[in-house]
Amino acid sequence: MTMKPRPQDIFETRAQPLVAGRTGLLIIDAQNWVMDEKNRQPRPEFYEAARTAAIPNMARLADASRKAGVEVIYTVMENFTEDGRDRSLDYKLSNFFIPKGSWDAKVIDELAPQRDEMVIPKTSSSLFNSTNFEYLVRNIGLDTIIVTGFLTDQCVDHTIRDGADRGFHMICATDACATDTKARHEAALKAFKGYCRSETTAALVEAISGCK
Amino acid sequence: MTMKPRPQDIFETRAQPLVAGRTGLLIIDAQNWVMDEKNRQPRPEFYEAARTAAIPNMARLADASRKAGVEVIYTVMENFTEDGRDRSLDYKLSNFFIPKGSWDAKVIDELAPQRDEMVIPKTSSSLFNSTNFEYLVRNIGLDTIIVTGFLTDQCVDHTIRDGADRGFHMICATDACATDTKARHEAALKAFKGYCRSETTAALVEAISGCK
Amino acid sequence: MTMKPRPQDIFETRAQPLVAGRTGLLIIDAQNWVMDEKNRQPRPEFYEAARTAAIPNMARLADASRKAGVEVIYTVMENFTEDGRDRSLDYKLSNFFIPKGSWDAKVIDELAPQRDEMVIPKTSSSLFNSTNFEYLVRNIGLDTIIVTGFLTDQCVDHTIRDGADRGFHMICATDACATDTKARHEAALKAFKGYCRSETTAALVEAISGCK
Amino acid sequence: MTMKPRPQDIFETRAQPLVAGRTGLLIIDAQNWVMDEKNRQPRPEFYEAARTAAIPNMARLADASRKAGVEVIYTVMENFTEDGRDRSLDYKLSNFFIPKGSWDAKVIDELAPQRDEMVIPKTSSSLFNSTNFEYLVRNIGLDTIIVTGFLTDQCVDHTIRDGADRGFHMICATDACATDTKARHEAALKAFKGYCRSETTAALVEAISGCK
Repeated sequence: MTMKPRPQDIFETRAQPLVAGRTGLLIIDAQNWVMDEKNRQPRPEFYEAARTAAIPNMARLADASRKAGVEVIYTVMENFTEDGRDRSLDYKLSNFFIPKGSWDAKVIDELAPQRDEMVIPKTSSSLFNSTNFEYLVRNIGLDTIIVTGFLTDQCVDHTIRDGADRGFHMICATDACATDTKARHEAALKAFKGYCRSETTAALVEAISGCK
Repeated sequence: MTMKPRPQDIFETRAQPLVAGRTGLLIIDAQNWVMDEKNRQPRPEFYEAARTAAIPNMARLADASRKAGVEVIYTVMENFTEDGRDRSLDYKLSNFFIPKGSWDAKVIDELAPQRDEMVIPKTSSSLFNSTNFEYLVRNIGLDTIIVTGFLTDQCVDHTIRDGADRGFHMICATDACATDTKARHEAALKAFKGYCRSETTAALVEAISGCK
Repeated sequence: MTMKPRPQDIFETRAQPLVAGRTGLLIIDAQNWVMDEKNRQPRPEFYEAARTAAIPNMARLADASRKAGVEVIYTVMENFTEDGRDRSLDYKLSNFFIPKGSWDAKVIDELAPQRDEMVIPKTSSSLFNSTNFEYLVRNIGLDTIIVTGFLTDQCVDHTIRDGADRGFHMICATDACATDTKARHEAALKAFKGYCRSETTAALVEAISGCK
Repeated sequence: MTMKPRPQDIFETRAQPLVAGRTGLLIIDAQNWVMDEKNRQPRPEFYEAARTAAIPNMARLADASRKAGVEVIYTVMENFTEDGRDRSLDYKLSNFFIPKGSWDAKVIDELAPQRDEMVIPKTSSSLFNSTNFEYLVRNIGLDTIIVTGFLTDQCVDHTIRDGADRGFHMICATDACATDTKARHEAALKAFKGYCRSETTAALVEAISGCK
């Protein structure tokens, strides 16, 4: 006779109520290198979307999170060594090289970390694969991660899928992310929507502000 | 003074020569449940693409791999317990439930595993997150993984990105994968092409047959 | 000004109350190969301790666990392939080779697994390093692991230390383990006692029977 | 018919020749907190052994490693946050609290890291469980780790076992480690000798100096 799932393994919806002490806000790659319009590739749609929507929305989410006791966590692309020998094979193949401690590796001023917030360096697409992020957030007691930052169809997408696989309730703040073009941004939101709950910044700010 | 990368960390191209003993062919979710046209969702483009292209191409790649001494590895969606309590949170939220040892969990007859090939059960999108796949292939001595199977924009995409992050040379056999629609298949190939080398089955069969 | 720990990060004691749905009983390497007195190394103290104490105590713990709804989990030394190419480097260096599906790999009859209990093959000292054990038990919802089996100063010791590092409340059932000599058994209990709570089978049976 | 191991999986000995670019020297917990004779527990045998043997031997090994191009890596006990909420459950249960950036967390002056050497903070016994150490050293290309530091029967023992399980050739520099008493040091060397190759500093300095 076939066995049935346990009652606690049956869910009606991904939209679980937020609990402050168990929720984290992850801000991905909001760093100088990414916003360096002068020296990096031309991508006008990205800079426009980032400056007018994604960055202000990340700031609103961070502000609401701090007030509510939701953990704010940053990750940035940054070598752990100066010569980058520790970089992932993929970063070596892709010729990504962001020196340790450089201006390029710093979080942009608009989103500056507050005292005792974690900034985790990585040389990979998903920080789950290359850092002890899962270890840190489990130790803190988090089971729900709100994802924001850059790029929607690369690190954001990948982090959401990995977090879903590893047992976290993943939430995408859909207007607090951006990528090279609006079309790619929209396509990505659709591509990974089965792995997470998708919400606007406005809805999340309200949920965070009201959470226990 | 800024340090430079080590010479061994500089690559001109992702197209490294294949070495038989270091290469694996991964066949993802080519199982009865996925090909169950009668009981699963209607998706005519998928069944057409799978039956006329992806499955025959996987068979050709498996055949060439066995002749050349390239490791053939399968993964299937399958609970490790009968009541599925071991499933990932994501599989519970998504109501995916494929009983251990069931017909649904079996690799399809056309691609039946040969003696001593590994079949790894998973309840996740990327087997890197939920199984000891990385451990097994490192012990065997593999550093290059050719990815085939289903669905191009879900498990295939995610596995390629995770493998890239974790230091493997990832190769997508672009016509040995499929997803619900042709449009989604093409979009996915574009979305993850920065994480891997993309090749046709014909090109890979030739490369595998000629490798040391 | 120096920051202080959060209130929830301060513990008075390791002796937390057991909760049935969050506790697992792990039985390590209680398999035919280990108990094969005829073909393996002579170690009379081990077989005596195993037969008269450790095995009966594991049976009592398993019985109490099943009645209370505590998960019973087995791990055994067993290759995942027939030629053992998947074994850890350490098993290769140590010339450990226990064929997949062999009599040697089977749990001993006295402790036969019940329906739907997990038996996890490994080729390592600590199953945390080589299997998806942590993933499975997190999905099930466990945070406390009672460790029993063989050998006290190898797999048992190592598993307790790894579990402690990875955020589990580890408990050693001190008279449900054994190793080659009584002296080594006692030394090991002392060596790892800082990583776990140490209890007799009698005390644990009582705690399990009374837990919610 | 039973399958046999592959030729490349058969080893005669653990004593493989050292290759400079594939070898790392790991220095564990050689930090001010551990050597703080005034404020920490009285353990005269430890301070004596550390000052007269282990520390000078680590210095000799580090010096030989730098000359030969062997990677020198440090790990220290150190919170990643100021309030230590990221610490492992075990460090919380044990009331270990070493503030981020504090004097206590610093490597002792005698063994000061050189430019671009990695110092990895941890809040666990084995850094394999809690940091991205394995990821970093695989990216660098290391497969052999020489272990030194404190305490022989805790972090050193545990790190050697984890490294062995995870596919590294582990080497213990037996006179470049120490623990609370000489008796515990000797017992630990015996307890984990099956997981590694054990060598004196003198023998290792010679091997390192002669390696390619």
